[in-house]
Amino acid sequence: MARVNEHYRKLQAGYLFPEIGRRVRSFETAHPEARVIRLGIGDVTLPLAPAVVDAMRRAVEEMGTERGFRGYGPEQGYEFLIDAIREHDFAARGIEIARDEVFVSDGSKCDSGNLQEIFGQDCRIAVCDPVYPVYVDTNVMAGRTGPADGSGRFGGIRYLPATEANGFVPEPPSEPVDLVYLCTPNNPTGAVATREQLARWVAWARAADAVILFDAAYEAYVQDPSLPRSIYEIPGARECAIELRSFSKRAGFTGVRCAYTVVPKGLTGSVASGERVGLNGLWLRRQTTKFNGVSYPVQRAAAAVYSPDGLKQTAEQISFYMENARRLREGLTAAGFRVFGGVHAPYIWMRTPEALSSWDFFDRLLAEAHVVGTPGSGFGPSGEGYFRLSAFNSRENVDEALTRVRRAFGR
Amino acid sequence: MARVNEHYRKLQAGYLFPEIGRRVRSFETAHPEARVIRLGIGDVTLPLAPAVVDAMRRAVEEMGTERGFRGYGPEQGYEFLIDAIREHDFAARGIEIARDEVFVSDGSKCDSGNLQEIFGQDCRIAVCDPVYPVYVDTNVMAGRTGPADGSGRFGGIRYLPATEANGFVPEPPSEPVDLVYLCTPNNPTGAVATREQLARWVAWARAADAVILFDAAYEAYVQDPSLPRSIYEIPGARECAIELRSFSKRAGFTGVRCAYTVVPKGLTGSVASGERVGLNGLWLRRQTTKFNGVSYPVQRAAAAVYSPDGLKQTAEQISFYMENARRLREGLTAAGFRVFGGVHAPYIWMRTPEALSSWDFFDRLLAEAHVVGTPGSGFGPSGEGYFRLSAFNSRENVDEALTRVRRAFGR
Repeated sequence: MARVNEHYRKLQAGYLFPEIGRRVRSFETAHPEARVIRLGIGDVTLPLAPAVVDAMRRAVEEMGTERGFRGYGPEQGYEFLIDAIREHDFAARGIEIARDEVFVSDGSKCDSGNLQEIFGQDCRIAVCDPVYPVYVDTNVMAGRTGPADGSGRFGGIRYLPATEANGFVPEPPSEPVDLVYLCTPNNPTGAVATREQLARWVAWARAADAVILFDAAYEAYVQDPSLPRSIYEIPGARECAIELRSFSKRAGFTGVRCAYTVVPKGLTGSVASGERVGLNGLWLRRQTTKFNGVSYPVQRAAAAVYSPDGLKQTAEQISFYMENARRLREGLTAAGFRVFGGVHAPYIWMRTPEALSSWDFFDRLLAEAHVVGTPGSGFGPSGEGYFRLSAFNSRENVDEALTRVRRAFGR
Repeated sequence: MARVNEHYRKLQAGYLFPEIGRRVRSFETAHPEARVIRLGIGDVTLPLAPAVVDAMRRAVEEMGTERGFRGYGPEQGYEFLIDAIREHDFAARGIEIARDEVFVSDGSKCDSGNLQEIFGQDCRIAVCDPVYPVYVDTNVMAGRTGPADGSGRFGGIRYLPATEANGFVPEPPSEPVDLVYLCTPNNPTGAVATREQLARWVAWARAADAVILFDAAYEAYVQDPSLPRSIYEIPGARECAIELRSFSKRAGFTGVRCAYTVVPKGLTGSVASGERVGLNGLWLRRQTTKFNGVSYPVQRAAAAVYSPDGLKQTAEQISFYMENARRLREGLTAAGFRVFGGVHAPYIWMRTPEALSSWDFFDRLLAEAHVVGTPGSGFGPSGEGYFRLSAFNSRENVDEALTRVRRAFGR
């Protein structure tokens, strides 16, 4: 009798974004005349940069020739991409990363969901609350938690509230924790950790022999050059942190699929006997066994992001989205909403008006303003009463959404 | 203290193909003048079909335009691809598959490695021996096995020997088993199951309430139209089987990355209470949580495989490889080697000469003929004394490899 993985039954009914999709489709079916503006799922809207398109097209053409065809690629990614990553994302900020410390993948969602596999079943997990649901759900599916309580918190996971009081950047926990997920600039709150805050996390992790999974998927949105973009800017982080990066938001790759993860060779965990085991080797084994690399044309496209034209064109895309974020932030603030984020991240994190619950605000916004956002409670119990708006849309839609939100709520 | 997943330590030192890669690199460094011919890893060599290149290039160009840009795609894949799959791979053979039963992915290696996650930890697993190592290794990593014994068999896995006596197609086990991996046409033996053999497997699975993970990655190589290409050609299979398909070998996509898995909605497993749970919903939850879809241009490329030109061009590629297989099979047989497979699959499965072990033959073949193959023992203990040669290479290299092998072994 084939038994199923019963841990799946502990999960909420649906993953957040499919649930939003279902509600939007249902509204659109009932109101086919409504022009719905989507500021919900954090999906980019600008076309791929010309430098990226050119490189990808050339790679596709190569694949049609005898000399240029490529089958299975190198396990961790092509050197042309890994070396561009090392140079532009790390060496340029004084960080030395070796070739075999970089693992190119098809997405940070996959990486952040899969990394837990190389850790022991009894690892104590901590997440910020609110949090990107993948960190929690994948640990639930792996059986590392108990069931969820009434507030949606899973037994066995340590939740670190990210609140207005701590500027949405929690301090390290005082209880023992082995593995912590940190996302900065943060999804969903848009908060960004300072160098001093990250230094406290690194010091804590080294003292606690804990590992930080540092999700920097939004680092390209940091506007202040003095803020850290990589956790490896903090001395000692190579011994306690794995870093995840993505081309999705940085270069509009949500439909192209490319990301990477850095696992430093000095980073270790322990086995029951006390012996230390390198996490780089474990991740290599995981990836070579369960993954077969990223499409060659996609890797060429990613490498083109680092070309002079690619850097310039993708920086312009980010400026465009950040101007959207500024308009949302300032417009909503001027209308009397309580608004956070949107300065170093493409997300606005706002209090719901009239003490509405997150999902009630979602439903009213959809029904009355035909605007889709993301309920804060979908990211965890501390997100209740908050709402996320994404800056990924056309200028016209952002301005129109702002007008409609103000009108719907009489401001 | 971050504990690592200790189950990884049960695995052999390296995944088979990286180990082969290491030995070949070491030989080439020592003998830079040698022209090594690779018939080891099953990697295609012909360039992508023109219809595929055209479709992919057009999709890349679309992504560079405001109207054509696409971000995150539908979770299970674009309808244009799913519908082409349903029509050509199933309806054409009298099989009805619903849209939401198809899950497009970036590779069958990923799917075959990930599917075990939706099953319970105490599922009893059976595999054929020899076997594609991913089925076993991913269950080891998930903690479903004990350590390996001296022969390389893991405790808790039921191995079904595929031998000359059973034509390399084992019968269903008599012991209780919950989950069985079947690959036909088979990697590595090249054997293909008949309709009658598959019918016995389906009848067994239904009686045992077991699930068959049917890996049909090589179905396009079946030459006899009366042989089954899909397990769903067998009545009752929709209630007991998941099927995996890939564009890798069918259309030269090893470097492009696209595959799909069919999980019928009638297929269920059980929970401790005895309640039945649909596997389609579990796999949907797994994929939406840990995966973010396949690159849009890649999905366009895959759909183009089913266009009239795509079908014709990829059929020609397969004929080319199968002529290579015929030459290897007949040439080695004429030289007195004992040879199997290569009729409905791109793999030759041969006995090693002179009672050599698989790795000894590998080393001698590399040293004396500069030909790379795959040691049969790498696929499991029953593969010891066998060797796999792949038909994926140029005609010239296949002919030259044959000449060198015959010369090296004095035949």
